[in-house]
Amino acid sequence: MLKNVTAEIITIGDEILFGHILDTNTQWIGNELTTIGILPTRKTSVGDNYHEIMEALTRAFDRYDVVIVTGGLGPTKDDITKQTLCDFFGTELVIHPEALAHVTEFFRKRGREMIESNRQQAALPKTCKYLVNHWGTAPGMWFEKDGKVLVSLPGVPFEMKELMQHSVLPGLKETFDLPAILHYTIRTIGIGESFLAEKIASWEDSLPQHIRLAYLPSFSGVKLRLTGYGKASLIEQELKEWAEKVNELIQDYIYGYGEIEIEEAIGQMLSDHQATLSTAESCTGGYVAHRLTSISGSSAYFLGSVVSYSNEVKSEVLGVSEYDLRAYGAVSEPVAKAMAEGVRKRLKSTFGISTTGVAGPSGGTPEKPVGTVWIACAGPTRTVARKLQLGNLRDVNIQLASAHVLNLLRQELMHLVQLPS
Amino acid sequence: MLKNVTAEIITIGDEILFGHILDTNTQWIGNELTTIGILPTRKTSVGDNYHEIMEALTRAFDRYDVVIVTGGLGPTKDDITKQTLCDFFGTELVIHPEALAHVTEFFRKRGREMIESNRQQAALPKTCKYLVNHWGTAPGMWFEKDGKVLVSLPGVPFEMKELMQHSVLPGLKETFDLPAILHYTIRTIGIGESFLAEKIASWEDSLPQHIRLAYLPSFSGVKLRLTGYGKASLIEQELKEWAEKVNELIQDYIYGYGEIEIEEAIGQMLSDHQATLSTAESCTGGYVAHRLTSISGSSAYFLGSVVSYSNEVKSEVLGVSEYDLRAYGAVSEPVAKAMAEGVRKRLKSTFGISTTGVAGPSGGTPEKPVGTVWIACAGPTRTVARKLQLGNLRDVNIQLASAHVLNLLRQELMHLVQLPS
Repeated sequence: MLKNVTAEIITIGDEILFGHILDTNTQWIGNELTTIGILPTRKTSVGDNYHEIMEALTRAFDRYDVVIVTGGLGPTKDDITKQTLCDFFGTELVIHPEALAHVTEFFRKRGREMIESNRQQAALPKTCKYLVNHWGTAPGMWFEKDGKVLVSLPGVPFEMKELMQHSVLPGLKETFDLPAILHYTIRTIGIGESFLAEKIASWEDSLPQHIRLAYLPSFSGVKLRLTGYGKASLIEQELKEWAEKVNELIQDYIYGYGEIEIEEAIGQMLSDHQATLSTAESCTGGYVAHRLTSISGSSAYFLGSVVSYSNEVKSEVLGVSEYDLRAYGAVSEPVAKAMAEGVRKRLKSTFGISTTGVAGPSGGTPEKPVGTVWIACAGPTRTVARKLQLGNLRDVNIQLASAHVLNLLRQELMHLVQLPS
Repeated sequence: MLKNVTAEIITIGDEILFGHILDTNTQWIGNELTTIGILPTRKTSVGDNYHEIMEALTRAFDRYDVVIVTGGLGPTKDDITKQTLCDFFGTELVIHPEALAHVTEFFRKRGREMIESNRQQAALPKTCKYLVNHWGTAPGMWFEKDGKVLVSLPGVPFEMKELMQHSVLPGLKETFDLPAILHYTIRTIGIGESFLAEKIASWEDSLPQHIRLAYLPSFSGVKLRLTGYGKASLIEQELKEWAEKVNELIQDYIYGYGEIEIEEAIGQMLSDHQATLSTAESCTGGYVAHRLTSISGSSAYFLGSVVSYSNEVKSEVLGVSEYDLRAYGAVSEPVAKAMAEGVRKRLKSTFGISTTGVAGPSGGTPEKPVGTVWIACAGPTRTVARKLQLGNLRDVNIQLASAHVLNLLRQELMHLVQLPS
């Protein structure tokens, strides 16, 4: 059995610590390392401070096989990474001829004048291997010691990514004998995390040591992620088999595998049936339409939406009867159904889905408190509606109501063997 | 001079380490801590591993005054944070009556059955102070020892934020004697970062040492954030004076100060004029309506939207002439104007705004490449349209087109002294 190759990712910069910028680099790096079979075990962010950087480098290099450092390499004064690296590896800064030629050429090509701080970017710790940065002037640096690797990269995302893809990842694959780490994601909707866990408890308990399960909940459902460690060809087959076993337990809730989102899965189901869709939205205010149209190619099956925030739009554009609005109120089963049927008819689509509710935080009544939502789906054979009782947060209610109505449509599409002609 | 109160933020979860989800929590927390005068000094992410968590807690609590831990508190098995906290503080898990009552009530309200793993969420380390999570079942925990504070919070962003805002930040302000760090944010739209920097260069150069400026660009414009350090009463006045000075240089681009978003600023302008709004969206697919309706109380001025993804909806519901659609194409000035006028008339609103374009990544032609977008605004006195040339990324184009059309409406509202009756 191969030993796990472990890694720490270190980011340097006050701007990340203070929350002035969002760190997207370490997510990307973590994902890339996992993909080639290196196990990210820790991430650390420190500021532009010599002692903090030194302590983090020492700790990481002591414990893990690979350390990836990003940031702290720009031409301005607050960047002290290179000096710290020199002290850490017991070496000194020297102008690297290849790096100097690169910086000089970089400025020449852009017709810009080069100043001393730019020239200093070619000064590198003597013992490192220079990695050329094709998109900028801050270099990459590769250190090897005691069978371990430390890499220092600029923090600008596209420069960092280019260096990782063309120098660092190939170098790591060459240096280490890596095991395969494979993932298999099962996407569910319409069931909460704890209920899901209960339904699949015996299956989960029987998973072997080298296959791990994670629950990843979001407003659009819970993803079950299986991670397998071992020989790629064997693991791939094994993950599939375990996924098939869990499929039997929860098949009604599964809408897809891998990277697919619910709006994409629905798009595929609609395309398979050569069916079209329109939406009538009150409390979700256009968010369902936004999710559907975030998918490239959605114009093939999505015709449009009527966001009916006022009752007048509900009656005049969607044809909801004024009697129903008065007798049952806008947040009611008859109105939800009439909206779905109305938009289906008006926009001439195969299916129409609707939402109407009290998104909050105000507007609730004792009978219809904040979070009361009706959703409906009208299709060629029938119209169904469901009542939801959500919470007090407007944003969350909009997210959840949109997920529920998409799931209602998915259920209707599942039961549709063939469209009546 | 006050001693700096330092903090470390620790996130727990394999999903962040492996790069399966993007960590936005620590940016938000870093920003909030900075705002109240606490200095974030380190961030660490560890996996769902007892020894890694224990080591990270020990290290952090040893070195910093405040430790904020997020994640690892869900009801499923991969969460071991609470047990580690018990061992770290030398205590044991006990069912907390208040926490149990909260979980029970949470399920009762939603009419959902409670299972054992839900009940276990009320088991807390005996020595901690329980912090109620109004939006979920995972509790917050506050530990104090040797004049230091450790807080453990759920990783779900909105639950974490609510706990921070209502329990943790007020608690930290009470516990520590914090220096004043004040912020003043000036929000601009319709001008890029580098052009803005050029316009305000002399003002920026004259800022005193204890007032710092940060440019925070997003798809909805650039925020200028001034940060002042010193005595609260003096700094507050000083920040205002500096903001007034920059106002003179860029007033056409400023839509607000502080926390206000562009959709909120527009809502206020519409309310001030007792005007109403509707939207006709093609390429933005409902996103403009979603943004407008994300504001609580928007039903007072927002009547609705027609998302016209197909040409048939453009002509039949919005009344765009079939001649225009054929002669100029759906992505054209006449169609953008007709859509804005059509939805204004149809939904009987004071203003109608529209978007039509090629969001991409496919669907472009040599005359109308991906990223070509027309936006329009129809009001009581006139209809105006603008052409945008955006990039190749669908998501980004939807975001940018929505920001541009909201800014076009803002400009029309600015010039409107009084509505014609």
